[in-house]
Amino acid sequence: MFTDLTEAELRTYRSDLHEPPDFDAFWADTLAQARSCGDPVTATPLPTPLTAVDVFDVTFPGFAGQPIRAWLRVPRGATEPLPTIVQYVGYGGGRGHALENLLWSAAGFAHLQMDTRGQGSGWSRGDTPDVAAAGPQAPGMATRGIEDPNKYYYRRFLTDAVRAVDAACELPAVDPDRLAVLGHSQGGAAALAAAALAPRVRAAVAHVPFLCDIPRAITITDATPYREIRDYLAVHRDREEQALRTLGYVDAVAFARRATVPARFSVALMDEITPPSTVYAAYHDYRGDKDLTVWRFNGHEAGAIDDDAAAVDFLRTVLGG
Amino acid sequence: MFTDLTEAELRTYRSDLHEPPDFDAFWADTLAQARSCGDPVTATPLPTPLTAVDVFDVTFPGFAGQPIRAWLRVPRGATEPLPTIVQYVGYGGGRGHALENLLWSAAGFAHLQMDTRGQGSGWSRGDTPDVAAAGPQAPGMATRGIEDPNKYYYRRFLTDAVRAVDAACELPAVDPDRLAVLGHSQGGAAALAAAALAPRVRAAVAHVPFLCDIPRAITITDATPYREIRDYLAVHRDREEQALRTLGYVDAVAFARRATVPARFSVALMDEITPPSTVYAAYHDYRGDKDLTVWRFNGHEAGAIDDDAAAVDFLRTVLGG
Amino acid sequence: MFTDLTEAELRTYRSDLHEPPDFDAFWADTLAQARSCGDPVTATPLPTPLTAVDVFDVTFPGFAGQPIRAWLRVPRGATEPLPTIVQYVGYGGGRGHALENLLWSAAGFAHLQMDTRGQGSGWSRGDTPDVAAAGPQAPGMATRGIEDPNKYYYRRFLTDAVRAVDAACELPAVDPDRLAVLGHSQGGAAALAAAALAPRVRAAVAHVPFLCDIPRAITITDATPYREIRDYLAVHRDREEQALRTLGYVDAVAFARRATVPARFSVALMDEITPPSTVYAAYHDYRGDKDLTVWRFNGHEAGAIDDDAAAVDFLRTVLGG
Amino acid sequence: MFTDLTEAELRTYRSDLHEPPDFDAFWADTLAQARSCGDPVTATPLPTPLTAVDVFDVTFPGFAGQPIRAWLRVPRGATEPLPTIVQYVGYGGGRGHALENLLWSAAGFAHLQMDTRGQGSGWSRGDTPDVAAAGPQAPGMATRGIEDPNKYYYRRFLTDAVRAVDAACELPAVDPDRLAVLGHSQGGAAALAAAALAPRVRAAVAHVPFLCDIPRAITITDATPYREIRDYLAVHRDREEQALRTLGYVDAVAFARRATVPARFSVALMDEITPPSTVYAAYHDYRGDKDLTVWRFNGHEAGAIDDDAAAVDFLRTVLGG
Amino acid sequence: MFTDLTEAELRTYRSDLHEPPDFDAFWADTLAQARSCGDPVTATPLPTPLTAVDVFDVTFPGFAGQPIRAWLRVPRGATEPLPTIVQYVGYGGGRGHALENLLWSAAGFAHLQMDTRGQGSGWSRGDTPDVAAAGPQAPGMATRGIEDPNKYYYRRFLTDAVRAVDAACELPAVDPDRLAVLGHSQGGAAALAAAALAPRVRAAVAHVPFLCDIPRAITITDATPYREIRDYLAVHRDREEQALRTLGYVDAVAFARRATVPARFSVALMDEITPPSTVYAAYHDYRGDKDLTVWRFNGHEAGAIDDDAAAVDFLRTVLGG
Amino acid sequence: MFTDLTEAELRTYRSDLHEPPDFDAFWADTLAQARSCGDPVTATPLPTPLTAVDVFDVTFPGFAGQPIRAWLRVPRGATEPLPTIVQYVGYGGGRGHALENLLWSAAGFAHLQMDTRGQGSGWSRGDTPDVAAAGPQAPGMATRGIEDPNKYYYRRFLTDAVRAVDAACELPAVDPDRLAVLGHSQGGAAALAAAALAPRVRAAVAHVPFLCDIPRAITITDATPYREIRDYLAVHRDREEQALRTLGYVDAVAFARRATVPARFSVALMDEITPPSTVYAAYHDYRGDKDLTVWRFNGHEAGAIDDDAAAVDFLRTVLGG
Repeated sequence: MFTDLTEAELRTYRSDLHEPPDFDAFWADTLAQARSCGDPVTATPLPTPLTAVDVFDVTFPGFAGQPIRAWLRVPRGATEPLPTIVQYVGYGGGRGHALENLLWSAAGFAHLQMDTRGQGSGWSRGDTPDVAAAGPQAPGMATRGIEDPNKYYYRRFLTDAVRAVDAACELPAVDPDRLAVLGHSQGGAAALAAAALAPRVRAAVAHVPFLCDIPRAITITDATPYREIRDYLAVHRDREEQALRTLGYVDAVAFARRATVPARFSVALMDEITPPSTVYAAYHDYRGDKDLTVWRFNGHEAGAIDDDAAAVDFLRTVLGG
Repeated sequence: MFTDLTEAELRTYRSDLHEPPDFDAFWADTLAQARSCGDPVTATPLPTPLTAVDVFDVTFPGFAGQPIRAWLRVPRGATEPLPTIVQYVGYGGGRGHALENLLWSAAGFAHLQMDTRGQGSGWSRGDTPDVAAAGPQAPGMATRGIEDPNKYYYRRFLTDAVRAVDAACELPAVDPDRLAVLGHSQGGAAALAAAALAPRVRAAVAHVPFLCDIPRAITITDATPYREIRDYLAVHRDREEQALRTLGYVDAVAFARRATVPARFSVALMDEITPPSTVYAAYHDYRGDKDLTVWRFNGHEAGAIDDDAAAVDFLRTVLGG
Repeated sequence: MFTDLTEAELRTYRSDLHEPPDFDAFWADTLAQARSCGDPVTATPLPTPLTAVDVFDVTFPGFAGQPIRAWLRVPRGATEPLPTIVQYVGYGGGRGHALENLLWSAAGFAHLQMDTRGQGSGWSRGDTPDVAAAGPQAPGMATRGIEDPNKYYYRRFLTDAVRAVDAACELPAVDPDRLAVLGHSQGGAAALAAAALAPRVRAAVAHVPFLCDIPRAITITDATPYREIRDYLAVHRDREEQALRTLGYVDAVAFARRATVPARFSVALMDEITPPSTVYAAYHDYRGDKDLTVWRFNGHEAGAIDDDAAAVDFLRTVLGG
Repeated sequence: MFTDLTEAELRTYRSDLHEPPDFDAFWADTLAQARSCGDPVTATPLPTPLTAVDVFDVTFPGFAGQPIRAWLRVPRGATEPLPTIVQYVGYGGGRGHALENLLWSAAGFAHLQMDTRGQGSGWSRGDTPDVAAAGPQAPGMATRGIEDPNKYYYRRFLTDAVRAVDAACELPAVDPDRLAVLGHSQGGAAALAAAALAPRVRAAVAHVPFLCDIPRAITITDATPYREIRDYLAVHRDREEQALRTLGYVDAVAFARRATVPARFSVALMDEITPPSTVYAAYHDYRGDKDLTVWRFNGHEAGAIDDDAAAVDFLRTVLGG
Repeated sequence: MFTDLTEAELRTYRSDLHEPPDFDAFWADTLAQARSCGDPVTATPLPTPLTAVDVFDVTFPGFAGQPIRAWLRVPRGATEPLPTIVQYVGYGGGRGHALENLLWSAAGFAHLQMDTRGQGSGWSRGDTPDVAAAGPQAPGMATRGIEDPNKYYYRRFLTDAVRAVDAACELPAVDPDRLAVLGHSQGGAAALAAAALAPRVRAAVAHVPFLCDIPRAITITDATPYREIRDYLAVHRDREEQALRTLGYVDAVAFARRATVPARFSVALMDEITPPSTVYAAYHDYRGDKDLTVWRFNGHEAGAIDDDAAAVDFLRTVLGG
Repeated sequence: MFTDLTEAELRTYRSDLHEPPDFDAFWADTLAQARSCGDPVTATPLPTPLTAVDVFDVTFPGFAGQPIRAWLRVPRGATEPLPTIVQYVGYGGGRGHALENLLWSAAGFAHLQMDTRGQGSGWSRGDTPDVAAAGPQAPGMATRGIEDPNKYYYRRFLTDAVRAVDAACELPAVDPDRLAVLGHSQGGAAALAAAALAPRVRAAVAHVPFLCDIPRAITITDATPYREIRDYLAVHRDREEQALRTLGYVDAVAFARRATVPARFSVALMDEITPPSTVYAAYHDYRGDKDLTVWRFNGHEAGAIDDDAAAVDFLRTVLGG
């Protein structure tokens, strides 16, 4: 069943999110700091049985220069820098197995799939730890460090996302002038952040993005990961204001208001995990050219392979094939 | 938690399945009849954005010559017939989207992915109808026509599986002397049947196969699709003998007793859908060289990409790369 | 809890369903074709331990003349044709056991209980197969053939329903001038169709009818059988228009707009299976005399025996006792 | 799935229940006391639309002479006393609606359906209160008064069951020499008690009887109503001995050891509510001629109409038709 | 997620409850009758290992003079009558264990914790039976005797609650001029009733009170205990008017309209058990000084220890420390 | 229902756990390192409305000297050092609110309730972060750092537990010669570890302890927190050996084999969270005097207040009152 407002209401819904006044300074400082440290990017060829794709095990400096893992997949035999997709994955997963997720490279893109710090033990595996003091928190990542914007998990994760773009631009297979970011759910939030914060990004794909219009989201769904924030506030009853302040620095509606590259969104009207109105909130405030595909009968899987196929077409058009 | 016998018990469990005395005649007749009719195999190139893989939309004659769809994926630029994988998919799905499931072709195999008649509206889509009189049945496929071995759904499906091997051998990209069958769950049952019934098969991969030791399976799990048979017998209380007789013609333990090519199995000890003892039953009675990977902490997903990666290695070894 | 609009909103809710322009021609053709073939009606006395009711095993020609089973129950010792109830059953069930469902005959009616093709392995058993090509479909009946109005399951089922009325009129125990149709849920949808399409019908009883205002229904409930359509469209994302077109030919709101005999409806405000607004949609558009019983605290069982008792009174009044 | 011991184990399972030493005295005293008070049996004709069956609203004196309601249904036109079935209903229900449950009278029996004190607001309605001090108890009836055998709910209920037989024998439609008791679940327990305690009973039908081998039952299922006892003991941790002592007076295994009339049992191997071993426990200790129907694929519904149809045949044979 | 109206709607929601015209007479009669009978209050010292608190096992006359149990906990060494809290507990529980619930006495109050008749086998144990004829009812207490205001369970329970205040005033440790009532959920309803009906009450604390705006409550939640009333009316379809009439005598909105002492309420916006609008209904109609704490992210636990801590402060202020 | 072996089997069940050969060195090193750093213990009086108990906000150096919070509750007016209970709390909770958990101090003990690092956002709140690199992990704590015994969460937590004993001995209210440890579930595991590792401990109470016989536990339950380990291994299929090695350093069976002070255990036969056999495993291998209370009808709550009351008696006997 539809899980949110009516279709007519969705078409006009606007978020009343007020991001913190120092939002831009916060991110400028965070990124400057991240860029000031860490080891250089490395990309080690990985032996695989694949004959059509080369895979590289990449490590790059993320938040605070901490090492972040990624897979780089490149069509075998490419002779010059390629249009490139930097992909961020959904909540609970990691970069997965080297042999998974071959669509993008098989379609002719260089494909950098970023691992997700601390996650990667759910629907797909990861290899990157999250280094931090983790205050009292609900199980999961959504409330880790929520007491302070500087300590919050998603500050680190989104910084990694921006630095992944930086790292991609250093890889020989990548044409840094034809680079896009892409993700589903948590990955979609990262794509919106990178589109706003990383100048090298030329296009963004955000399928059912998470972290949009969070103050509303946490009151209209019981599903994880928004549920984690609700569970935290159900115990730490005196920290609502503090938590919402922190969340204001990572709300993808704020990133949408700052991004100007062409973007493709999707939304699913039976989505219980990222409720449709929250996706519309980001879409409506997005500053660049934009398109939204509405899946009326899907849950959080949204368009799945149909979203991916459309993304390939969209990115080919924007980046050139 | 473990869902079946102890590990020690599993290692010695043998099925007491008695297949019908005319089992071999039944299948010989069925296949002869299928091979006597139907239109020729066709393979139409499909335009896709892929640069590393060519995709063909295949139609071949299955049970009673009825047209069955499939995808053929071939590494672009292959210049001679390739080692080939015929893949059958799990319950509820179909051949999916042309852009999905690129591992096998990216690893250098010709890859024929058979659609599943009548299914293909669940976890992946399909394009092939099931043509039949469908007697009173529980929702799903597992009891469609169960009142008569000749009308039973799985007679048709398994015949399609054998005929897919026949069809593959007619395709130019395929080296008919280096052909294997592979599947997960329902697909694993089909692989075992094809290994027993299709002489061109050189190797088989059956991950957590369905349809094994059915008389036991339907009493030890509440999960679909075995549950469908239980639900049917809960209403048609007088048809247990009749149904078990029909099921005897499609039990993969009987196929395992007849197959002689090298085979790779996997089993998951926390699997509620194809309980471990039923997989061990097929494995223990398998006549050819065989290997079993045991996943102790997995449910029905079993090894997933790890099973696939191991299958690539196994098939490369058996078929030559 | 209430599962739909408020009580005030329900009282004014009207469907904006637009049935296909050739709706009437479609059904005229379908029925003409059905009436042109098939074997004659047969009614074989069934030995039972009952002393108050005689039971006959009936077979009549349904869609495309295909044989459909039914029970005819007649009060023992009736000496002349009786007022008659043709009953259709709910989703998943069949005509059941001969010894079940004795109310109507014990109340003095001839009672023809139609079997449901292909179903009858759920809450009650059946004996009638569904003969058709079944395209990729979700488990169950609601999406079987949904890709084409001519192949859709409910075209066949509703034709059977009309032909059951034809068949009843040929049975000696039946007074063809005093015949009503009755059903709950799926059976209620059939009753509305028969009331619109079968001129011999003198009254209709539709308790919480299914198949009403389908475009709305599939967006406001997660319960089966509407759920099947949602599940289908979640995978076949490109077939929404096609599916809704097909569904337009079987929507009971369209039948309600064409029926003129007296009718009794019931609706349950806590019904998750046939949401109240969809029942109101059919009720409000029903052309004949009509009455609606509202059960405020019931789910899909609605009035159950209270609905049945009221139906006996209503039918006695309309048909004469 | 099978919910209890293996089929081989079930065939040899014997309960080690030790009923209290004063079990027989307890019931003799209870019945003597009940028979010493209360108003006479009344049977008031009820106007109904039925033409084949007459219904009477019966009130008879039960435990402590308290008035208990029942329906008496008699085939219309019967001219002499009939073979009679006294029926007890399952947990949560009451005598239901006068127009329900017509099988037995339509099959030629006088049929007295006893209401269940205090219940009758669940799957069917009732009209009889339970008069008692109800100590701290879990929701439901199974722990009401469990602290004392004299105050326990099931002492009252089983006394009602015996007194229903007494009452039936006073009704003109009843042939007191051809009387049987019948019930499903809680009703089956009552039938076993009445078979042991009411000398006028000539046969008993106990389908999946409740209250058998209770000390085992409460440790092997989580389903209501046995669950109620577990929930009670989870809070009143010091009352296990006391509760088990009380339950010893109502365990149907003890009644089975004392009953000598022919009996028909049924058991369902996938029953979670009355686990199969507990039914076998009563069956194996039953002293009279006996028969057990095993439903391998059913839950607590067991044989349903098939059990009923077999019961009609059994009772016709034992009582004469 | 939020379980009821929007926050803006809640702030203006008013119940349209119409209590019965003889509401005040009903309660005056009931209390007069209760006060006319029963044994005197007793308070027996209980040996415990506690060194800071003395516990007494109290028995006092409740409805119809029936004996009701309670714990009295008093800070050891108190030398004069103390400010006092009479506490009522939530649905399913009883007075619990003597060693539980030490906050109030450790904070310097005399603390009388009333047992709940008939309950006390759920989340905490009790020792008090409910003496009554219990008509056909759903499992639990909420429909016991609902057919008649005079026989309804909550008439007895709320009378007990008022009589607990009377009893407290007779205990030497209690200063009858500084007495407050307090409760959560069912206990909050009792506190509102006592505030309205017991003149000695000086303050009331009602956390997420049950029994408010019942006609609305039973249509907007599926959770127990309101669910019990829905379940009852789903079977006894003809008793809605009768049941709502009975419920009118115990609706806490009516008590709120009659209470004048200072009161503290809490409400939880994600509460499924006592939906927020029903709590607002009581709060908005409360006649005395009042305060409402809104917990935005809590379910029925509401503020838990935070509510309790605030209640200590509130009561210290109102009663003096 | 019983969730594990039969009662007879439980009484003889022994774990075959083999702790790592360097188990004792591992803990000696860990504790030596912890004791070498960190700030001194502080205890700050907290203003509360309590009159019978004084509460202090304690901070002490835990693992690696990291600051750990605790509450110290002392009966007001105590004039000399008291027998003392150090309590550890269950999974998901923290030290809670200062006004909670007053039993132990009201019974005359000094009561130090340790906060749980990183947790404390579930059933009770906490205030202590967990400082660490958290590798890819399942949500929750049970797999944080599981790839390396030195990085594993429970190494840090159990070190905190031992250091809490050290800290208690420095507090003026505490008599270091009369100190016991106590906990439920995760807290029970900590109590066993402290009993083995902290020489000042004179008695231990472990109610349904977690972390016992882990290799078995993770295969026989689906409940969190053992489920977290299963979920981790379901994705990281190649890390079973590595994870089991790490877990060997924190298995409470190993601690039980090393502890010699008198101990009280409890076990619940319907516990799905810490399955009974795993508790018996620790109990049977415990080296000191020991007692086990068996709760036959409880889940993981086990004896709850009854366990606590018995613990008070046990500790009074062992420590002196």
